[in-house]
Amino acid sequence: MQDNRYMIGVDIGTTSTKAILYQETGELISYHNYSYTLKTPDVHTAELDPEMILEAVVLTIEKVIKESKVNASNISFISFSSAMHSVIAIDKNNKPITNCITWADNRSAHWAQRIKEKFDGLKIYQRTGTPIHSMSPLSKIMWLEHEHPEIARKTNKYIGIKEYIFLRFFNLYVVDYSIASCTGLMNLHTLTWDEEVLHIAGITEQKLSSIVSTQEIFTRCNPYYAKRMGVLSETKFIIGASDGVLSNIGVNAINPGELAITIGTSGAIRTIINKPKVDSKGRIFCYALTDEHWVVGGPVNNGGLVLRWIRDELAQKEVHKAQTLGLDAYDLITDLAESVPAGSEGLLFHPYLQGERAPLWNSNVKGSYFGLTLNHRREHMIRAAMEGVILNLYTVYLSLQEIVANNHEITLRATGGFAQSKLWRQMLADIFNREVTIPDNHESSCLGACILGLYALKKIDSFDIATNVIGETHRHKPIQENVTRYKGIIPIYLQLSQVLQPAYEAISKYQMKLNE
Amino acid sequence: MQDNRYMIGVDIGTTSTKAILYQETGELISYHNYSYTLKTPDVHTAELDPEMILEAVVLTIEKVIKESKVNASNISFISFSSAMHSVIAIDKNNKPITNCITWADNRSAHWAQRIKEKFDGLKIYQRTGTPIHSMSPLSKIMWLEHEHPEIARKTNKYIGIKEYIFLRFFNLYVVDYSIASCTGLMNLHTLTWDEEVLHIAGITEQKLSSIVSTQEIFTRCNPYYAKRMGVLSETKFIIGASDGVLSNIGVNAINPGELAITIGTSGAIRTIINKPKVDSKGRIFCYALTDEHWVVGGPVNNGGLVLRWIRDELAQKEVHKAQTLGLDAYDLITDLAESVPAGSEGLLFHPYLQGERAPLWNSNVKGSYFGLTLNHRREHMIRAAMEGVILNLYTVYLSLQEIVANNHEITLRATGGFAQSKLWRQMLADIFNREVTIPDNHESSCLGACILGLYALKKIDSFDIATNVIGETHRHKPIQENVTRYKGIIPIYLQLSQVLQPAYEAISKYQMKLNE
Repeated sequence: MQDNRYMIGVDIGTTSTKAILYQETGELISYHNYSYTLKTPDVHTAELDPEMILEAVVLTIEKVIKESKVNASNISFISFSSAMHSVIAIDKNNKPITNCITWADNRSAHWAQRIKEKFDGLKIYQRTGTPIHSMSPLSKIMWLEHEHPEIARKTNKYIGIKEYIFLRFFNLYVVDYSIASCTGLMNLHTLTWDEEVLHIAGITEQKLSSIVSTQEIFTRCNPYYAKRMGVLSETKFIIGASDGVLSNIGVNAINPGELAITIGTSGAIRTIINKPKVDSKGRIFCYALTDEHWVVGGPVNNGGLVLRWIRDELAQKEVHKAQTLGLDAYDLITDLAESVPAGSEGLLFHPYLQGERAPLWNSNVKGSYFGLTLNHRREHMIRAAMEGVILNLYTVYLSLQEIVANNHEITLRATGGFAQSKLWRQMLADIFNREVTIPDNHESSCLGACILGLYALKKIDSFDIATNVIGETHRHKPIQENVTRYKGIIPIYLQLSQVLQPAYEAISKYQMKLNE
Repeated sequence: MQDNRYMIGVDIGTTSTKAILYQETGELISYHNYSYTLKTPDVHTAELDPEMILEAVVLTIEKVIKESKVNASNISFISFSSAMHSVIAIDKNNKPITNCITWADNRSAHWAQRIKEKFDGLKIYQRTGTPIHSMSPLSKIMWLEHEHPEIARKTNKYIGIKEYIFLRFFNLYVVDYSIASCTGLMNLHTLTWDEEVLHIAGITEQKLSSIVSTQEIFTRCNPYYAKRMGVLSETKFIIGASDGVLSNIGVNAINPGELAITIGTSGAIRTIINKPKVDSKGRIFCYALTDEHWVVGGPVNNGGLVLRWIRDELAQKEVHKAQTLGLDAYDLITDLAESVPAGSEGLLFHPYLQGERAPLWNSNVKGSYFGLTLNHRREHMIRAAMEGVILNLYTVYLSLQEIVANNHEITLRATGGFAQSKLWRQMLADIFNREVTIPDNHESSCLGACILGLYALKKIDSFDIATNVIGETHRHKPIQENVTRYKGIIPIYLQLSQVLQPAYEAISKYQMKLNE
């Protein structure tokens, strides 16, 4: 690695695309971000315009190169991270006939349900590593094939957003096995499309891209785009992987026992293992990173959005005070929560305000407060809600432990908006009873893409390089008194999700009927 | 009945004693109220000073006579209502050696638990009609006998507060069979102390008063008190009954199908039947009124106190606005609740903020919100809490129906603070799917005592007289759209109390440990 050689990491996300140009040694030189808005004409639809994403990729690369004033010949490579689970139907003329249907689009929810019940969903999951859910291309393709024959008939290929970029740049249908592994259609063990699952989906592999390694290198970018971006014909493009798995590299959660936890609006917990493993109950995803690195974990729907709901419904006083005094409402809310002891004196909150993915994988679960007495005040309700988000992640961790089952010392790397709150960081340390560190790096997927690129080019022989590049800003050790209080709460939290199952189905049916 | 003849109803309550002087024909002539405060040195103790109650009775009678300027010879009788379940230990010299331990005192809770588990509590209940609970003298006496031998040894009699008044007035230990029937020691069928239960309690009937009819007449009041009150030696004192059963007469809920519902801080639902009946699951009380009238029903802990909690924790904005504009905060809160449709769009609230008596009889049950989604606002939480209070009363009604099981058209008479809210009255009509009327009478137990007195003196031959005396202020018919919405909610509400049982025990243990 040389400090006069450069690399670019591009992360194609659901709400923005980012490009970062680094020195090969890890120093950040320039950064550009291009934001967009999900198209949500109704509560079930969540789409993006593929042309706009293409534009975002081209523009952000162009800008970081221009701004850094780096000579194109000194760019070793550009490597790509992208959001998982997207589907675009493409016709014979290589033109999109749908928008990019994102993971958040749940119009195929009833197909996920059918796969679970009628097609032995658990067995499909165990072949593919992708939990059966409306997020996955498997559900989305079945929905399109069965309910939109006018689209299915015209479709030549179903591809994801990164495949669309590579189609335009290289005129090829290629998908890295990281993105392929989260379609729900790839066999985890052979790294090829799973014929049995394709049969259930009602398609053949002619309708999908060719699977390549995440370290596959492409050159000779379409001259039109190459010129706009300011790269050369020989500039190397590494196909890269998905944002989730690359983020683990980018926060240095690489070795056994190192867990990455992110909470933004939603959240996730992930760790890397060296061969594919699946969960007997279908709760944990297993996605490819390289053929020797697999990322297992669980995504949760209910992260920071819970705190936003609390702010709007239970903290109007603090919002008003913050506006009047020019303070941050979340700081005042956190102060209130801090006035209550760990465990909220026996008040529990289940954060399932918009159903849940891991560990329950049930869109019918609902939020609840449990254990209310006359002694519980508003500040208990606020603290309990924050604790509920972390307790839910802890239950994902418990299912993760069942399949990882190693004896390494567990440590946590936390990122996302919540990692900026001291109270939440300490809660994480106390509920998990583990040390928590906060990496000094906000765009872990871009950095992860670059580290994967260096590995692809054999400039490094392990991902450990991240240790040198990534600093840390905070470190929290568990406080034993709090650990004890949470240890009493956790079994009740788990017990509740179990016993409430039939009531979740009943209330869900009731609420759905109201909306008819 | 003559309009130049008068009667006085006295109601000895937990927070005040009231006396009302009426014409025999029902017109209210004068009223006096004497308030006092429960002694609660800790959360388990709830006592009153018997001397202070005696003073309150004497003073209120004195005042209503003085104020009315009625000649004592024109007073046909004075009749007594009193709170249920109180215990005072009296020594050989007829002096109290304890305070008056009220129904709300729960220091004997663990004895109630033991009676349920070790002494076949359900069978005891079925003999006595009093649910096994710390409220009842049975539990309180067992607690004193076992844990306070220094008191038990000196005790000549265990009596209730009305017995204490009659002891001072007439130098007799007498208890009416209405008050006796809520001690948990009287056999419902024989109207005598139950030897088997006394054996379990560890006492003989020598330690209790003699049981008399609720229509028993006493004269020759102790001259000291007679003089202070301004009554004659021949003035008739009717011993009367308990406040609960008399209230049913006083609101004219006398006939089959007529239900009285009261919600103050706590609440109750009651109806009159013509012979004693008990519940196979021990959820419904059955207390004597006369030997042909029995009152069955259930008391609930969580009434208006739920709305107070909501006001303090979820409605600070409205409290502030009310203070600023000189409005009533509850009116603003009710307006908010009214902006949400019936059923709170599938948000449920279990109101068990301080455990619950009927229908669960479990001090470990807790409050909860269930069914929360991102669409639920603060106003949903407020409305759901109000609905939760009524839904809980509805579940008591369901158990009541199991034992009453008549085919009469059901109507509801509602009283107590909540009956002043139009929203709550309509909720009651909609959840019960029955017509609700609000009697125009705020002191139903005093009026009930007087009607019982007229019956005792054979001036009337049925309680129906109340129909003529009691007007009504409001009448609400069920709104079918709301009825339908609640019909969907009720089974889920019931299901939740069932499935949450083990979690109630677990969280209760956790919360108790915190307080150790």
